[in-house]
Amino acid sequence: MPSTRPSFPLSLTDAWTRSDSLLCVGLDPDPARFPAHLASRPDACFEFCKAIVDATADRVCAFKPQIAYFAAQRAEDQLEALIAHIHAQHPSVPVILDVKRGDIGPTATQYAREAFERYQADAVTVNPYMGFDSIEPWLEYEGRGVFLLCRTSNPGGADLQLLEVGTERLYERVARLAAGPWNRSGQLGLVVGATAPAELARVRELASTLPLLVPGIGAQGGDVEATVRAGRTANGTGMVINSSRAILFASSGEDFAQAARHAATEARDQINTFRMGANPG
Amino acid sequence: MPSTRPSFPLSLTDAWTRSDSLLCVGLDPDPARFPAHLASRPDACFEFCKAIVDATADRVCAFKPQIAYFAAQRAEDQLEALIAHIHAQHPSVPVILDVKRGDIGPTATQYAREAFERYQADAVTVNPYMGFDSIEPWLEYEGRGVFLLCRTSNPGGADLQLLEVGTERLYERVARLAAGPWNRSGQLGLVVGATAPAELARVRELASTLPLLVPGIGAQGGDVEATVRAGRTANGTGMVINSSRAILFASSGEDFAQAARHAATEARDQINTFRMGANPG
Repeated sequence: MPSTRPSFPLSLTDAWTRSDSLLCVGLDPDPARFPAHLASRPDACFEFCKAIVDATADRVCAFKPQIAYFAAQRAEDQLEALIAHIHAQHPSVPVILDVKRGDIGPTATQYAREAFERYQADAVTVNPYMGFDSIEPWLEYEGRGVFLLCRTSNPGGADLQLLEVGTERLYERVARLAAGPWNRSGQLGLVVGATAPAELARVRELASTLPLLVPGIGAQGGDVEATVRAGRTANGTGMVINSSRAILFASSGEDFAQAARHAATEARDQINTFRMGANPG
Repeated sequence: MPSTRPSFPLSLTDAWTRSDSLLCVGLDPDPARFPAHLASRPDACFEFCKAIVDATADRVCAFKPQIAYFAAQRAEDQLEALIAHIHAQHPSVPVILDVKRGDIGPTATQYAREAFERYQADAVTVNPYMGFDSIEPWLEYEGRGVFLLCRTSNPGGADLQLLEVGTERLYERVARLAAGPWNRSGQLGLVVGATAPAELARVRELASTLPLLVPGIGAQGGDVEATVRAGRTANGTGMVINSSRAILFASSGEDFAQAARHAATEARDQINTFRMGANPG
């Protein structure tokens, strides 16, 4: 299926400039936390996310829907409609579909078809545990972005990712592979949590130009200043800093979208405070 | 949602005994390979898999639908119907839903809800890269099985899984964790490809009683004798040996289900030849 979407690496760079923002709003629609006036609607996932999207689109460099929330609700049609809405109404904001898939070639091809053809995502998240041939089918979609899990923000991320492999740790090996031999087409990025800034800095050292998708600020407690100083590129971009719950559920009332806009503006501005300037000695 | 399904560890043990089979048929419905008389039907994924299931149910210890094929076709409803059909018509055959998910806690909870509540799977496959707290939410579903990816059958499986971590390799560490501290509730199993029998034997050594889900025989070329001798437990069970394409597409004509039954019978019998007796040399 031919796509009319622009190349993700270009559209992300444009979005950083145009929005003056590194903030990404994660769309994790948890019905238990919807405002009362939406909760009983059959299309509540779509309506909730659409309101968040329309209220925050000029404050963000990307949106990141999390497919698990839609799948648990049998709401795949609402996810399709949501991404179509973003492309139609906010065409310059790329959509990163958080799927964290990982499977062998023929099955990865099916997953790539799901994400890039069915849902029309601009980029995805992929798990590297099964190696490069499980990543290749995603790269056949020219111009689409693929963020590989590298150092994740959850406590258990340490269980395997911090194991020493030769002279480095496993997450460093993933970063080195993604910045080098695996990145033949310039489509790769990395997922690195905000909860371990020293490791984020190490990934930026190993992968100086790759876009980093950084979850873990907001509800997960990552420190914004340390995160931005650790992950930014020389020109003060290079990061897609995700916040989900702190923005989506900034208010539980009918003013939830307005509250989300306010929270997104504050998060964007706080991030921007630390994008330029020297790191403290 | 309360489940009426029996505990997976028990139902799998029963299935090994009752069917006298270690064979699992993988349900990977690729529309490009459907027989002509089914190809244009809107419910072709369901009808194709249902015919395979009904023709092979007494030859297998489990069925393993691969969710990616359904998702790429917008056929989630057909996957729901297929699993409901298996539970209703072949209640003693457990269903392993191949999803290879892996995400942090709150999102893993959504994925577990998708697999265990929506689809009513008896067991799933999960990626361990994000560590134990990404696995825990799956284990909250008492009696459901969780197969962790350990040593996969694709060539790229070597990229990370064979890295040396201390005195062992990464896949050995995963096997050791799954057989020990991570397996608090007895729900874990491991995915180990048939394409590297020496590593399969090593996993069996580290995880003497865990069920092993073993893809890679048939189309992927794994050697059946070496696989069974490497992975069997002392009583000649312990393995769920998956074959997908070699059985699903044994014939491309209207006799596809009958051909699948014939191929499944041959695969079961070939496996059974090597279940008991001493290993050579």
